[in-house]
Amino acid sequence: MTSLQRVNPRVRAIRVSSQSALQSLAAHITQDIAQGAQKPFKEVIDVSSGDSHRAGLKPVSFVRQVLAVCLYPELLRDKSLPLDVRLRAERLLEACDGGSIGSYTASSGLLHARRSIAEFITRRDAGLPSDARNVFISAGSQRAVMVILKLLACGDGDTQTGVLTPMPCPHTLPPLLDEVGVTQVSYRLTEERGWAVELDELQHALTAARGKCEPRAVYISNPGNPTGHVQDRKSIQKVIEFAAAQRLLLLVDEVYQDSVFGQEFISYKKVLFEMGRRYAETVEMVSFHSLSCACVGECGLRAGYMEVVNMDPEVMHFVDTMLCTDISTPVTGQLALDLMLNPPRPGDASSDAYTQEILLTRTMLSQNAQRAQERLNDLPGMSCQPAMGGIFLYPRLWLPAEFEEQAEMLGVDVEVLYCQRLLEEEGVFVGADGTTGRHHLRLCVLVPADTLDAVLTRLCSFHRRLMDADNCVQNDWTQHVEKHRESN
Amino acid sequence: MTSLQRVNPRVRAIRVSSQSALQSLAAHITQDIAQGAQKPFKEVIDVSSGDSHRAGLKPVSFVRQVLAVCLYPELLRDKSLPLDVRLRAERLLEACDGGSIGSYTASSGLLHARRSIAEFITRRDAGLPSDARNVFISAGSQRAVMVILKLLACGDGDTQTGVLTPMPCPHTLPPLLDEVGVTQVSYRLTEERGWAVELDELQHALTAARGKCEPRAVYISNPGNPTGHVQDRKSIQKVIEFAAAQRLLLLVDEVYQDSVFGQEFISYKKVLFEMGRRYAETVEMVSFHSLSCACVGECGLRAGYMEVVNMDPEVMHFVDTMLCTDISTPVTGQLALDLMLNPPRPGDASSDAYTQEILLTRTMLSQNAQRAQERLNDLPGMSCQPAMGGIFLYPRLWLPAEFEEQAEMLGVDVEVLYCQRLLEEEGVFVGADGTTGRHHLRLCVLVPADTLDAVLTRLCSFHRRLMDADNCVQNDWTQHVEKHRESN
Repeated sequence: MTSLQRVNPRVRAIRVSSQSALQSLAAHITQDIAQGAQKPFKEVIDVSSGDSHRAGLKPVSFVRQVLAVCLYPELLRDKSLPLDVRLRAERLLEACDGGSIGSYTASSGLLHARRSIAEFITRRDAGLPSDARNVFISAGSQRAVMVILKLLACGDGDTQTGVLTPMPCPHTLPPLLDEVGVTQVSYRLTEERGWAVELDELQHALTAARGKCEPRAVYISNPGNPTGHVQDRKSIQKVIEFAAAQRLLLLVDEVYQDSVFGQEFISYKKVLFEMGRRYAETVEMVSFHSLSCACVGECGLRAGYMEVVNMDPEVMHFVDTMLCTDISTPVTGQLALDLMLNPPRPGDASSDAYTQEILLTRTMLSQNAQRAQERLNDLPGMSCQPAMGGIFLYPRLWLPAEFEEQAEMLGVDVEVLYCQRLLEEEGVFVGADGTTGRHHLRLCVLVPADTLDAVLTRLCSFHRRLMDADNCVQNDWTQHVEKHRESN
Repeated sequence: MTSLQRVNPRVRAIRVSSQSALQSLAAHITQDIAQGAQKPFKEVIDVSSGDSHRAGLKPVSFVRQVLAVCLYPELLRDKSLPLDVRLRAERLLEACDGGSIGSYTASSGLLHARRSIAEFITRRDAGLPSDARNVFISAGSQRAVMVILKLLACGDGDTQTGVLTPMPCPHTLPPLLDEVGVTQVSYRLTEERGWAVELDELQHALTAARGKCEPRAVYISNPGNPTGHVQDRKSIQKVIEFAAAQRLLLLVDEVYQDSVFGQEFISYKKVLFEMGRRYAETVEMVSFHSLSCACVGECGLRAGYMEVVNMDPEVMHFVDTMLCTDISTPVTGQLALDLMLNPPRPGDASSDAYTQEILLTRTMLSQNAQRAQERLNDLPGMSCQPAMGGIFLYPRLWLPAEFEEQAEMLGVDVEVLYCQRLLEEEGVFVGADGTTGRHHLRLCVLVPADTLDAVLTRLCSFHRRLMDADNCVQNDWTQHVEKHRESN
């Protein structure tokens, strides 16, 4: 271990996103403020990732109440807690070995929770069957994705497994691919069409990759992280046909299925099963969901699940083997998943409060998304596609040539420099993404309305200052932006 | 994914211990009972792994009370909870972003908890400094071991990284080595000397491995899992000298440091730092500890930590990179770690109750270990070294030739057949281990005293039946056992 050269080359090759560096900067600034440094802002607001509780969103009471009772069962006698909370906790404790959430569970999760998940899926998909044995709980959906990638990984050079991934994609995905040793085959999403998934792009990426690696799966993020695009039935159908024709495993990140605005979320599984037996019985698919989703947002409890469809049971056996090396998934998270997917029923003591809390979050999220999009589009040098779901906005920057030159001189990506300066000058932390070859920001809008207002005010003020300083070249980008907007 | 042949060969090569098969059998029997099947026992008692809550041990109240308040902060106003519980919860919530345990933490853990851990280490090691920046929290110590193994893994064939591991070793370790692609280089522990670590054996294993792989680290389990051996200062010193001379990274599993009977636990770090600068400033070491340890036993919350000593900062940076792919460690577990390592202080409202609970567990554990060892040694065809720490007994079986022949005929390992029959006939689940070339059982004694009694009664009754059935050959093994005992 003495020399860096001896660290596993695959680990050394893990791409670290700009997020890490910006995170360090944000932490640094926060520390400075704590130590009395004078800044034009009182605190850093972090909207760079999907961490709603950090941004001030309140946890769902029912979930927290039941978990508190499970942790400290003396509370079963606390009459100030709603009856259904106590009954639910009692039932969950019965499902834990030794009646304690301190016991390990099976590596694929508590059977009780897996059954709850399967029932949820069946309800969601209008009665389509789901088998608890095909549901695997893990410490976050990221961990589940990792398990499947590890199963797929093999070969080297032009025989190395490749996975088709959207461009842009969730910023947490590329490091996983690197760690496992899988080639990332990017297919472009079309910004001008609201970041739609287009078949030509999938086909094009696949053709280009063949001979360079062995593409074996296609990763879809729907609702799109970070794009906010939501696929309709027809688009999903086309992707399924493509995967079937090319014999690709479908990896569907449906983590934000609970946050689709003004339309209905349709799951890949539902579409697949309605396409007839030819597809429903052959296309291999894994769908991921997470406790860190929009309305519950319990990121810190770490739980997610995957449902596996049409996978060879002998291969599925290895999913379990892989999860075994974690020994067990955190139990508080597993129970929270159960609660999230099987909330109080009408008539239960907690039902009204629960429904209202979820509704408030959902309404706030869609209003935030719309308000933020409008304000960003009002800015010179910025264009933002409307989000149809998910929790992010993903605006594009059109910055003056001078700014681009400055970034080049500093050896920093343009959008990263933008975010650094925004952090330093206004204490607002948004994500930077240049993977598309364009300059984008990633902005979580699942935050309290007043927090969002503060973010937008500071961001707009910074942005206008930046553009004014370079207004000599404004004409240039104004034309770009106008053209871009018209094409929508 | 359609064919098994295309699953990652490294995943396919993961050795699955007999534990999985026995677990399935146990689950099957439990299910049968639930469905009304008549058995000579009412329930299966599982003492095969270190899962004390499952076996009926009660959680530590202080830990659970504080966690309950953290989950549901309304309880801060509940005056029936001790004052220090509420104050502690308040402080922990302040350490969480957004005041919620639903927020992600830094991938290496909450700074607050890392500092608490460093302070604990300093107190434990009589004032030796520990820096929070060298402490990394992860979802269980197993996960931490995995991260370090991944850093070390490289090469192929005779250049593949090798890790010296004890024989016997924790049954969860070999699958990790397989998954990562590291060669397991076993060094024998000496059963006849209470499973001591002997330098000759380390040296012998290393010499034999050179040329076949590249040994780069040595894994030590102290207190020994599953052996119960506890190293004294001199023995630790010798291992450190060996690691230094051979330039091996020391991986020290000190998970059961809170359960050493009748003597004091000495950490590897303390010994290292007392060996003078030549060692203290050069020997690279990682020490692991866990929330699943003996006295707290919160396996289901999933948290552990590692302290890294003398590692190149540039290499240490990759520890963080690796933890990043998990995004965040479960927060309830992190807080529980903090509480376990910084319990109530004398004078605090919860102090007496806490001290008493821990003391009770510790006393029960050491009494259990002694009682069980005596009863097992009373059996014909069984010999058990006394445990000096940890939570397991690891008796050796000396079974009649007929039984061995039967196992061979069935194509099952002798000790696995023994455990299968014990499970079927008496509903007692103990672990089976044949990795030493001998036949051993693994028996967790961190269970309530009456549960242990039930286990011992059923086990002894099964064992005597088995031996009686084959008493024609008893003379044979009696001689072996007697000889073996005399040599101790």
